[in-house]
Parts: sequence; C-alpha cells; structure tokens
Amino acid sequence: MPGNTFGHSFRITTWGESHGAAVGVVVDGVPAGLELTEADVQKELSRRRPGQSEVSTPRSESDTVEILSGVFEGMTTGTPISMLVRNKNANPGAYDYIRNIPRPGHADLFYMEKYGFRDHRGGGRSSGRETVGRVAGGAIAKKLLSSFGIEVLAHVIELGGVKARQVTVEEIRDNVDRTVVRCADMEAAEKMLEQVRLAREEGDSIGGIVELIATGVPEGLGEPVFDKLDADIAGALMSIGAVKGVEIGAGFDCARMKGSQMNDAFVMEDDGSVITETNNAGGIIGGLSTGMPLICRIAVKPTPSISKKQKTVDMSSMEEMDIEVRGRHDPTIPPRMVPVAESMLALVLADHMIRSGRMNSEYLLR
Amino acid sequence: MPGNTFGHSFRITTWGESHGAAVGVVVDGVPAGLELTEADVQKELSRRRPGQSEVSTPRSESDTVEILSGVFEGMTTGTPISMLVRNKNANPGAYDYIRNIPRPGHADLFYMEKYGFRDHRGGGRSSGRETVGRVAGGAIAKKLLSSFGIEVLAHVIELGGVKARQVTVEEIRDNVDRTVVRCADMEAAEKMLEQVRLAREEGDSIGGIVELIATGVPEGLGEPVFDKLDADIAGALMSIGAVKGVEIGAGFDCARMKGSQMNDAFVMEDDGSVITETNNAGGIIGGLSTGMPLICRIAVKPTPSISKKQKTVDMSSMEEMDIEVRGRHDPTIPPRMVPVAESMLALVLADHMIRSGRMNSEYLLR
Amino acid sequence: MPGNTFGHSFRITTWGESHGAAVGVVVDGVPAGLELTEADVQKELSRRRPGQSEVSTPRSESDTVEILSGVFEGMTTGTPISMLVRNKNANPGAYDYIRNIPRPGHADLFYMEKYGFRDHRGGGRSSGRETVGRVAGGAIAKKLLSSFGIEVLAHVIELGGVKARQVTVEEIRDNVDRTVVRCADMEAAEKMLEQVRLAREEGDSIGGIVELIATGVPEGLGEPVFDKLDADIAGALMSIGAVKGVEIGAGFDCARMKGSQMNDAFVMEDDGSVITETNNAGGIIGGLSTGMPLICRIAVKPTPSISKKQKTVDMSSMEEMDIEVRGRHDPTIPPRMVPVAESMLALVLADHMIRSGRMNSEYLLR
Amino acid sequence: MPGNTFGHSFRITTWGESHGAAVGVVVDGVPAGLELTEADVQKELSRRRPGQSEVSTPRSESDTVEILSGVFEGMTTGTPISMLVRNKNANPGAYDYIRNIPRPGHADLFYMEKYGFRDHRGGGRSSGRETVGRVAGGAIAKKLLSSFGIEVLAHVIELGGVKARQVTVEEIRDNVDRTVVRCADMEAAEKMLEQVRLAREEGDSIGGIVELIATGVPEGLGEPVFDKLDADIAGALMSIGAVKGVEIGAGFDCARMKGSQMNDAFVMEDDGSVITETNNAGGIIGGLSTGMPLICRIAVKPTPSISKKQKTVDMSSMEEMDIEVRGRHDPTIPPRMVPVAESMLALVLADHMIRSGRMNSEYLLR
Repeated sequence: MPGNTFGHSFRITTWGESHGAAVGVVVDGVPAGLELTEADVQKELSRRRPGQSEVSTPRSESDTVEILSGVFEGMTTGTPISMLVRNKNANPGAYDYIRNIPRPGHADLFYMEKYGFRDHRGGGRSSGRETVGRVAGGAIAKKLLSSFGIEVLAHVIELGGVKARQVTVEEIRDNVDRTVVRCADMEAAEKMLEQVRLAREEGDSIGGIVELIATGVPEGLGEPVFDKLDADIAGALMSIGAVKGVEIGAGFDCARMKGSQMNDAFVMEDDGSVITETNNAGGIIGGLSTGMPLICRIAVKPTPSISKKQKTVDMSSMEEMDIEVRGRHDPTIPPRMVPVAESMLALVLADHMIRSGRMNSEYLLR
Repeated sequence: MPGNTFGHSFRITTWGESHGAAVGVVVDGVPAGLELTEADVQKELSRRRPGQSEVSTPRSESDTVEILSGVFEGMTTGTPISMLVRNKNANPGAYDYIRNIPRPGHADLFYMEKYGFRDHRGGGRSSGRETVGRVAGGAIAKKLLSSFGIEVLAHVIELGGVKARQVTVEEIRDNVDRTVVRCADMEAAEKMLEQVRLAREEGDSIGGIVELIATGVPEGLGEPVFDKLDADIAGALMSIGAVKGVEIGAGFDCARMKGSQMNDAFVMEDDGSVITETNNAGGIIGGLSTGMPLICRIAVKPTPSISKKQKTVDMSSMEEMDIEVRGRHDPTIPPRMVPVAESMLALVLADHMIRSGRMNSEYLLR
Repeated sequence: MPGNTFGHSFRITTWGESHGAAVGVVVDGVPAGLELTEADVQKELSRRRPGQSEVSTPRSESDTVEILSGVFEGMTTGTPISMLVRNKNANPGAYDYIRNIPRPGHADLFYMEKYGFRDHRGGGRSSGRETVGRVAGGAIAKKLLSSFGIEVLAHVIELGGVKARQVTVEEIRDNVDRTVVRCADMEAAEKMLEQVRLAREEGDSIGGIVELIATGVPEGLGEPVFDKLDADIAGALMSIGAVKGVEIGAGFDCARMKGSQMNDAFVMEDDGSVITETNNAGGIIGGLSTGMPLICRIAVKPTPSISKKQKTVDMSSMEEMDIEVRGRHDPTIPPRMVPVAESMLALVLADHMIRSGRMNSEYLLR
Repeated sequence: MPGNTFGHSFRITTWGESHGAAVGVVVDGVPAGLELTEADVQKELSRRRPGQSEVSTPRSESDTVEILSGVFEGMTTGTPISMLVRNKNANPGAYDYIRNIPRPGHADLFYMEKYGFRDHRGGGRSSGRETVGRVAGGAIAKKLLSSFGIEVLAHVIELGGVKARQVTVEEIRDNVDRTVVRCADMEAAEKMLEQVRLAREEGDSIGGIVELIATGVPEGLGEPVFDKLDADIAGALMSIGAVKGVEIGAGFDCARMKGSQMNDAFVMEDDGSVITETNNAGGIIGGLSTGMPLICRIAVKPTPSISKKQKTVDMSSMEEMDIEVRGRHDPTIPPRMVPVAESMLALVLADHMIRSGRMNSEYLLR
C-alpha cells in the first residue's frame, strides 16, 4: 500500500516533488454545499509559503492555487476537489552536488535504499514542499469545521530555548500572524526572533515546540479501539517532517503526576451540561473527545539543512567526506509549521466529524 | 468506519469486554510457514495478565489462550488466526454502582454520549482488558519478527518520579522481567516499587514512562508521506489507553537542540556499510527506518481508578456527588504496559515488513 | 493486505477452516441499540447448515452459534460482535488421500502454489464452510436493515436447466423455505429436485441461477465512482465460492436492447414521488439506488466435487492420475447459497446505509 | 468514505467533471524504475477519446495528458504520479435545459437526491468522461504488467445483436483497433457498424458485450476470502458506467452445465508444469488465478442519451413531461469501452501483483 492518502471519510491524496512541475492534492469526501473559493485556500497557502519573512527560506513561490474540480457555482458538489500549485522558482541544478551524497538529518540515503533511485532535487518528495497539499486540503477542512463551530489554532510556544508564557485563545487568534515566529506572546516572540538570527549567522538551525488547540469539538468524537481521536492525531502530527514528539493535555508531565492530580473531576455547568473542572486530559479520554478544548503539542527538530560542516559519505565513491549544505533553507521550522499542523489537526477532526455522521451536506444546504 | 482493526498488511481485529464472556483477536496476514503454538502466545499473555504481582490488580485471570484457526500441523497456513481468552474472574455486579455515574479519568461518560448506551461493567470495551487481543496478536508479530532478526523490547524508565539510569539492551533483556515494575535498572526498580506501595496506601496511583527499542530493523521501512514509520508508531502507541505522549529518539529534547547537535552524521563501518554516528533520530528519518536501533518513549498517566474521593455527576439524577472508585485496580500502569507497548510496536513493524515485501512465506518455508 | 475482511462502515472479518476447531466472524460497526439474540443468528445459520435435506451434504453440524461480545442486556453496544461456531462433525482423516492431489474445479492446487503449504482437510479455508461467518454476519445485517424497512430475499430461479416462472415477492417470502431447492415456483421446484436426484445418481452435480431482491432501499445509496452500489454488490457476490457471473436488472439481456427499450421512464406517483415506470436498471443507475426494488442474479457453477472419474496430477510424484472425489458433498449448490447470497447483499446494503449516515444508533434507540 | 479511489497496493484516485476545468488522476504505488513518458499514456487516452469516429460522440477533445509528478529522468520514482487533462471542448450551456430535468437512464435524479445539489453540465462527475482518469491510470498499469509479461486485451464480441465468431488472441491484437467498433472478427465488425448507423438514424442506441483476456498471469494471484481475484475484477468492471453484468469463464452458461462438464481437468505439460485441459474457469478458481488465460465478459447497456421522445418529470415544477436528449452522444458504448475495461482489468492485476510481492522495483531496476 502506498502512503500518500490520509483519512477515511474525509480523505486527501497529495502528490508532487519540490522541484518537479507542480504539487497538489485531491480532497475526497467533502460534503456537498460548502461555499468554497480559491481565496479560502490561498489564504492558508500564503501562511505556509516560502519567502514570506526572514525566518523562512528565500525561495520565492507565490504558491497560487487552482481548483480544478468539485466546485460548481461557488459550492462544493460532493465530488473530489483537485487542487494544483505550479512550482515557479524551482532551481533543480542547485542540487546536482547531492545526487550521490546524503545530507545528515535528511531522508536522502533512505529513499535511495528504499527505491533504488530518487529525485534528488531539493529532496524531491521528502521535501517540506509536500506540505502544500496538506495545507490546501487542510484549508477546506478548516472551512468545513468552522461551519460547524469548530476552530483550530496553532502557535509556537518554544523556540531555540525561549519559552512563551501561557496565552489565551484570544491572544493566539489576535497575535499569531502578527509575528514572523508565530508566537502569541509578543515579548517571547522578540527573543525567539533573536535566536533565529543568531542561528542563521552561525549557519546553524534551531528547534521548538508548537501547541495546537481546537475549540467547539463535540463530545464523543473518535472510534475505539485503534482509531481513537488521540491515536489519529498523534499519527497525523508525527507524519509531518521534522516532528519528533506528540503529547496530549498534560502529556509527558503526567508521568510525574498522581491519579488524584491528573483526573479531571466532573462538574455541572449552570446550563445543566457536564464538563470537567480541569483539562489535564487535553480534551480526550479513552480516545473520545470530552467536549473540552482539545490541546496537544509537537516537538519540532531544528532544520537539518545547515551550512556548518558535517560528516557524510559519497555513495558513488563510497568514501567519507564533509558536506556544507547549500541551497535555500529555513533557519527554523516551527513558524511555518503552524499552518501545516493546523491542517493536520483539522483533517483529523473533519474526518471524524463526517465518519460519525455529525458533519454532512444536509446541514450545509439547509 | 469502526475502529477495532489495526494494520494494513498484517492486521488484527480485537473484540471483547472486560466482564463479557471472552476477549479475543483475529490476526490476518500472517505469512504461511511460521511455527506457532499456543505456548508462544501464552508466554506474552502471562506477562500482561492481572494478578501477577502486587503492582497489578488482584483480579485473578489465567488468561488461557485457545487458537481456533489458521494453524495446521504446528505451522501457520496464511489464513486468519482466531484466538480466544475466556473471562473467568469477571465480577460484573461490583460495577452496578457506576451504571449511571461516570468515573473521573475514565471514558464512561463519553461512551454514554457516543453510543447512548453502554456495558458499564468494568468499563466494558474501554477497559484495559481489551489489550489481551493486542498482546495475543503482538505475540505472533514478535515471533514473526524474530525469524527475521528483529527484536522488540520495552522497559519502564520512570515511575512515580523515579528515573532509571541509562541501561544497555542486554540489561533490558536480562532484567526487565526480574522485577515486578519491569525496570531494567534494578536499583531504581526498588525505589519505584516503594512509590507504588506508597501510592496504594494513599488510595492513589502513579504514572511513568516506558521506553521501546527495536533492533535489527532494516533500512527504508515506512511509506512516505502519511504512512511514515514514525507516524504509524505514534498512532499505534497513542491508541493504548492511558498513553498521553509519544516521542522518537531525542523527542521533545530536540526543541532545545541546534541542527548541528541533532543531525546524525553519516560514517562508514569497516564492512563498508553506512551508519549514523549518533542516533538522535531514534532510528527514523523522513519517516523511513535508518537501520539504527529504533527508540521511542511513551508517557503513561496514573491509573484513573483511585479510592480517593473525587467529584462527579450522577447522570440519572443529574446531581453532583462524590465518588470513591471501588473494584480491583492497578496502582500503576507502566509495568503491565510493557508487553502491550511491545505488541503495538511489533504489530507496526510486522505490518511494514510485510507491506514492503520483505517478510513473506517464501523466506519462512525455505 | 489480507483478504478476510469485508465492508467499510459495517465490517465483517471471518475466520476458520472446514475441519479445524471452529469457524466464526467478528462484526464491527453495528450501531448501538439493536436488539439481538443468538436466535436471530441461529435462524439464518440453520438455513445454511449442512445435512438439512437430500440436496445438501450429509455432514451433520448443528452449527450452534455463541455470541461472545458486543451485546449487553439483549442490545448491541456499538462494539465488535464476535461469534463462534464449533466444528463438531469434522472428519479430517477422510481427506488424507488428497493431501498431494488437487481436485479439479477446486482451489487445492492454487493454495499450494500461493502458500507453499495448506490445510488440505476438506479444502481448509477454501471450503464452503467459510460461509458460516458470512451468514452469521449477514444475519445481523438483515436484522438491522429490517429495522429500517429494508428486506433482502433470494430464491433459485434455475437449476439443472429447469427454469422457474416469474414469481412475486410474496411468493418468494412464502415459498422459498418450503422446498429443499429454495425455488418459489413450486412446480418448477419439483422438476429441479428430480434433476438433483438424477445428478446424484450419476455421481455428478448441477449448476443454477439465484436471484436476489431487496425492497425498501432508499434512493441515492452508493458512492461514485468506484464504490458504486452495483460495483460493491458485484464484488460481494462474486466473492462467494462457485459464483461465475453477476448481473443487475436486465443484465446480459441489455446487450440486445435499444436505448429506447432499456431506459426506465420517470413518472410521478399519486403521492408526488418520482419513480421509474419500468425497472430494467434493477434499482441502480449510475451506481446509485433508484428507490425501485434492487434486483440481481448470480450464476452458480455445479459442485466441483463429483464421484465421476476425472484427470488430475499427483503433486508428490508429479504423475498424471485419475481421481474420484469421495467425502460428503452437495449435489448442487444454489439451494444452500440462498442464505449466503442474501447475507452478502445485506452486508453491502448495511455498509452503505451506515456509510451514508442513514442507519445509526440514534434511530435505533429513540 | 468517499468512493473515488480504487485499489490497495496500486491505487488510483480520479477526479473531474465532464464540463469542468479538467479531469485527472493520481496514481499511487507505482514501483520505482518503470520507464514512463506521456506518450505511453497518450496512446491509451487517444483510444478512448471522443470524436475519433462515427461511432463516438462528435465532442472534439485532444485529451492531451500532462504528467506533473512521480517521474524523474524518464523513470518512475515510487512517488505518486499526477496526471492532468484539460477539458477543451466543453459546452456547458448546452445542458441548461436539463438543470432540473432528469434524463431517463442517467444518474441525474439520484445525484440530486444524494447531494441535494449537482453539476448538471453533461452529467458532471457521472459522465463517461470520468473514465479519462481510469484510462490514464490503466495505461501505467498496462505498461507495468507488460514488463512482467502480462498482456491485457479487450474486444467487442456482440453489438446490437450481431455476434462475432470466436477469435484468437493474435486476431484481437491485430484487428481490434482496425475497426471503429473494435471487433476482431472483421466481417462481424461490418455488420455491427451497420447496426450503429441504423440506431443513429433512428435516434436510438444499442448495447453489446465486451470480452477481456489477460495472458501471462501467474498462478495464485488473489486473496481469499473477500479479495478474490474474480471478486475484485467483478467490482472493478461493474464500477464502469453502463455495465450491467460481469461473468468469468463459462459464466452464466455454467448454470446449465454438469460438474463433469464444467470442471477443468489437470494435466501435465511436456515441461513438467501442471495446467488445466480446458478453461471453463476462465483462469480463476477459488478466487485465485490458475495460470491459464484470464477470460471475462461484460454486458454494456445501450447509451441512455437518445433523441427519441421519453417520459420524465420536471423537478422544479414537479410535472410530467417529455424529453428528447440533445447534446453530443455516442450511439453505442462498447467500442469506446474497450480501453476503459482493459484499464480496469489492468488495475486489478497490477494491484494484486504488487500486493502479493511479485511486482516491485527490484525487478524493474535490476
């Protein structure tokens, strides 16, 4: 089984290489009746696109999306939505020197091993550029979710060792796109930016942590035993390049907690609904959503492409050598990962909303 | 889509409730030609079964497995293997008091919400008892992997705040089943055991961290883009009840590392093979195995069933009330999670080994 | 990918060999709230079981089913339903002579080729006995569908060259289980029975045609482009052993029709609903149900096990030889295929009903 | 679950509407190392394209394909291959009159019912134009299969009541594209052509039968129990619009045969291989390929679009009315179905070849 399709009831199939003709996605399972224009998708792609600031690669791509199917008279029809983004600023020649030389921290060597043959230009399919398809698909998922009152947000909470203070959902909404590092704590954002500049000057790169929040998620979403909501979220987020860890709610801190601290007590709201008093569970218990805000965090490794000297092996001569990775690269990944991570979470939620029968065209068209 | 099936090319479907007639699993996709007896499976079930020590629930189940199909004259035939474990020490009456009262930290309320109706006895399907099927299936996966030189190990590295020192693979192999807490650092194990006793006395529970290691994994396992090896592992491990975080290699620590620290340099071995000098990647880069040991860790929350007083709501009267959870429970989960986590990792690896064409009956029968 | 699972939203996984310990099925995706007892399933299994009449094998199996999970206080819980039937009258020794000798018309040789090794006793997994799992799963699908006003019926319309006259749905309901050949035209049934007796005397076997009808199917069921309702039905029915053809509505006759004959005109009913005047489409157009009765037919080959002398090859000595197939066999398959075919059609319809959001526990529990 | 993806290990996802911007397909699971150019795909698309002869619609489309990903330096890389065909001769305005009026024999009414809303232009997604994606994907499957010595052929054997004589595989290869009706019996082809002209003059349409043959298929392909080779073929072929029946080997004739006639005896070839003396099974027994030529047939209904007067209902006014379908249509479908049916059979075979580990990049790249 090939691995370029994600989701069950709401499903994306992405395709394309970093320096090929184009990248794109087919989104299948979108209910009929959603108002959708290219602008809805473009907005998210522009948050992801390279060249937008000093914390991202200077590769200049407008990432203009074209919707080729599945929308008629401004509304989705229930048939697959195919979206296409042409690669404009490809510079494949710049990668000739790595044709036989695997870059440390990259998948080069393992693609060679797996396929016996690879498109080495900019990492080909293993490039972060494959996330264009995720974000285009995620834009539709987000629009769909918002019709049902579900909002998905992400923000950088740690970068190069600088931690943001606790922020509110409102602060995230207001601030996250106001700083190039996408941290909602504006003071921490300044310090993070310094760390990025420092790393860039050193020819090095830095890692960080992105937090995701979804509000408005109804209770009971997720399917026992293997398709639990947290299992699907973990798989979705870990599938993004450079992510090395995923945690939900209290996450790794729960290892040091007692049951009496970790358990979220049930209490009644004035309107008679039952909620949990705390949210250490991060909105998921037993693999099902609790109705509380869904909270998770991902650990993002520092960009593997650095201009510092590193050891590698020339696979044609089979000799050890040093490499300084050239080309256009991001000094840090978390800021541009914000829309990508939001997309993956939105895709999981849309999938489960449809799968459980909650999200359908009857609602949209009424 | 229901969620009780896991895997693509090697696939398990588990079934059964904590206090129903039985629990079990159907394993589909096992190549023909594997020698298999009930003893192979029993060995792993006995590591998981309740009542084995003071750190586990006193519920007494022998968990005797019966293989009903798919094995002929001691060898697998390529057809589905159905396995059955009767529930012997069920005590459903003990749960009458929670029929309408959700226990904090448990899925009770959300199953009610999802299905409108539930088997409340011991958590029904949401009980940890569902892992019998995982472990029985995992036992076959482990046996299969070992025929191909792949070993899967897990051990407790942190419990109730006590951290184990770094141990070797040999130490894990030798020690992990020698202590009831399944920590390979025998000194730390003693301290952990004290923490368990303390928690039990307080009517409380403690969380911890389990580390998993797989050796002998060949290069290039995993499928870009969405079925990456780490994505599948994250999903598999997060699907286990009580797991709140998953990390690979350096994991969350990578957020504080620089690219020059995180990247694993390529070097040549004397035999001409190319390996990485360090293993911060934890054996996976770009979603593909690197040929280095595969290393991951999971955060396990403290057992939600505690006898301390907690707030909840009676869903029949819709009134807030206090609950002290009775019944037979584990004071801590990580020790019994060791065989479960090993099973899930083994299932993922077996799945990808078969999917990639590496593991088949030609090899087994030659 | 293994092939023992059928369906998407309503899914069965069957297991078991003809002369192994047991056969069974796990049914996943049954909505919570369906009243279900073992008697519901037993009724259908008894229609399928061997030894029920002179047209079936004398192997004597009560085929008593045990429900092991997924039902609580007489109602389905939404969790997997595991069902088990022990093989009682197995007689594996009777098959020693075919260990290395493939029977013409059977899958023996191709299982050997595929798996390198097989359970040869009574065909092992390739035996018609695997349909026990299909029928047990189908019984739940049928009960579920009937809650939503959908009825699934099958009857023999041709056997050994004898054709039944056109019958009404009422006649099928009333007559099909009154004759051992399961033909609703009682006169034709008599003649068919003679053909069966004749074939049995000659040590030969006969084929036939089974027709299926589903009433109450709502409009718009099915998913363009590849999961069309007719595509899923064709796959489901062709997956039954001995089926060599499937047709919908006018079927192969449409090849000789003109568009003006084949097209079903749209007309209005008194109640304002739009139906088709004729039903050459057999209730499916463009892969979607039309709201008219769903009609399809399957061609069933004569039982391959015959006691007449046939040519084969001894695979151990690699020499040509003659074989007379001994053991207990049906002289004709269509009568016992009636409940099997009904089951497969019911499984497809239940799957699409759930998948499309039409059939859920809200309805059942209200 | 949406339904626009076909296959497991070799998988296509098609998209696009008849009068939208474009139609296309993403092909995932193609092994690395296959030489592939746009000409390989164009060749098959040109066999399918409209406007090629008097037996097809006059809509003029060059159907020029663009490969956007997955091919590097003339070879497949193992990553998804995205292919795009722009719609050039769309004439959506011509369909304004059917916006609210369902055409008999078409899916119009049922799409309205299913989605509440549809792209009515030329049938939108339910148009035969969706087969562009199938044929583009099938072209890759065919090229891949031919590398492994498997050939897939189809030819018209009956049209408008005219039956072709039995022909050889060589005749099919030589003749099928020499006549516009794609019948390898050149005399029958002439008579069929007359029937097409007659139907066109009458404003009517005719149906027919297409036979498919695959040679070089190895033994043991297919997966018991539900993913049998014949089950997958039946599902694949029935998913093509206008197909109302599928049969394998003797097909519906087997209903009138005895076991002693139907069974294919095993005999040895001079080279020591075991084959069947006859091939009533059509190359598949027990769901597994037998190594004999694979033979199946499909019944194709007459084109539903006819200019004769038919009854229908105006869904806006809810009044009965007459319709004469205008627009550009094929007077008969089987000739253009030949490449489509070949594609579906090739897709199934490629899927099972890869799934069983027989077809991989090691072979292609050696």
